[in-house]
Amino acid sequence: MLANFFQQAGSQQSLLADRTCDQATTAIKGIAMKFCSQCGGSIIERVPDGDNRRRFVCASCDTIHYQNPRIVAGCLPVWDERVLLCRRAIEPRRGYWTLPAGFMENGETVQQAAERETLEEACARVMDLQLYTLFDLPHINQVYMFFRAELVDERFCAGDESLEVRLFRQVDIPWSELAFPTVGRTLEYFFADRVQQAFPVRNEAIEAMRVARKQV
Amino acid sequence: MLANFFQQAGSQQSLLADRTCDQATTAIKGIAMKFCSQCGGSIIERVPDGDNRRRFVCASCDTIHYQNPRIVAGCLPVWDERVLLCRRAIEPRRGYWTLPAGFMENGETVQQAAERETLEEACARVMDLQLYTLFDLPHINQVYMFFRAELVDERFCAGDESLEVRLFRQVDIPWSELAFPTVGRTLEYFFADRVQQAFPVRNEAIEAMRVARKQV
Repeated sequence: MLANFFQQAGSQQSLLADRTCDQATTAIKGIAMKFCSQCGGSIIERVPDGDNRRRFVCASCDTIHYQNPRIVAGCLPVWDERVLLCRRAIEPRRGYWTLPAGFMENGETVQQAAERETLEEACARVMDLQLYTLFDLPHINQVYMFFRAELVDERFCAGDESLEVRLFRQVDIPWSELAFPTVGRTLEYFFADRVQQAFPVRNEAIEAMRVARKQV
Repeated sequence: MLANFFQQAGSQQSLLADRTCDQATTAIKGIAMKFCSQCGGSIIERVPDGDNRRRFVCASCDTIHYQNPRIVAGCLPVWDERVLLCRRAIEPRRGYWTLPAGFMENGETVQQAAERETLEEACARVMDLQLYTLFDLPHINQVYMFFRAELVDERFCAGDESLEVRLFRQVDIPWSELAFPTVGRTLEYFFADRVQQAFPVRNEAIEAMRVARKQV
């Protein structure tokens, strides 16, 4: 659900333009933990025995609270020669265009997460999902995965967190108004690969500096 | 680091043989949360406003504590006609063979995580990593990703959590002694694809029932 997406990631992404790689480096990247979620005790940062990284550890019950990257799953929905984009209704990047995407939930597959986000944000149903782009964003502890997909029909509309949903031909893509670099890269690859009708899975890292440069 | 891997995933995976899909379904899949990590207040399970899922929410400060799937990254290291496997030194599946893999850490890419795990578990360096298999394990909230990789040289040895590390030709793979279904599937795909010398990225879900059946 998009509320989930924004609450978890939005505020981080909006800060990218002001951050550098160095600034993003802290002892433990992620949200600071103050109390143990198991016993309520105080949390300290230390390297546990047999480990080589600083972790959030409970000073009372010794529980180690690991922090791990999260997956953002989305679709590149296609209808004939056009692709579907959503204009964001909320911050960050309100008013900018994005592919439907959001945080993967427990208990689902990446593909199911991509389908769900497409339904929630664009009220659109997709089929024939094929994994296409996998972007690492180590500076914000996220991995993005987009699937190419066919729209089941031409029915779609703005979900709660979209202002507008539209199909775009390549020549009409609002390149300067895309919300995130992951969206722009996925679209660039898609239109280039479409010429050959070959869509290999693309895996690359998008670093903080690249994001910062693009958003200047 | 393997300590991390086992502490986070091991106990879950070892339970698979005794679980069914239904049994794995709880209100919030994952580790139960009792106290708020921000203010130490009591946690309740409820559907937050604007959401459609039960979450861990702090009764005092209203912080929503999202639970998301984690990524396990690993390598299929190749040397000539052989692939490298590690025999596990600790539970679960102690004594069984695995590809080097473990939980992705904050601040790294999936590929870096796979390289790191290979170094830690097999003391081996790899190059030319290519994303190969991506398995969804929704019943334990994990996504596995294996990269095909070339060993840099023939130097390797057992890391702290491996009993033994060896190169295997296809005919020598200990199929009945593999630790996890994700490892078996990756090896099956690899040897099949090697015949054609074409290695498309494979994405599929491995359900609890499949795991249970295989481990009976």
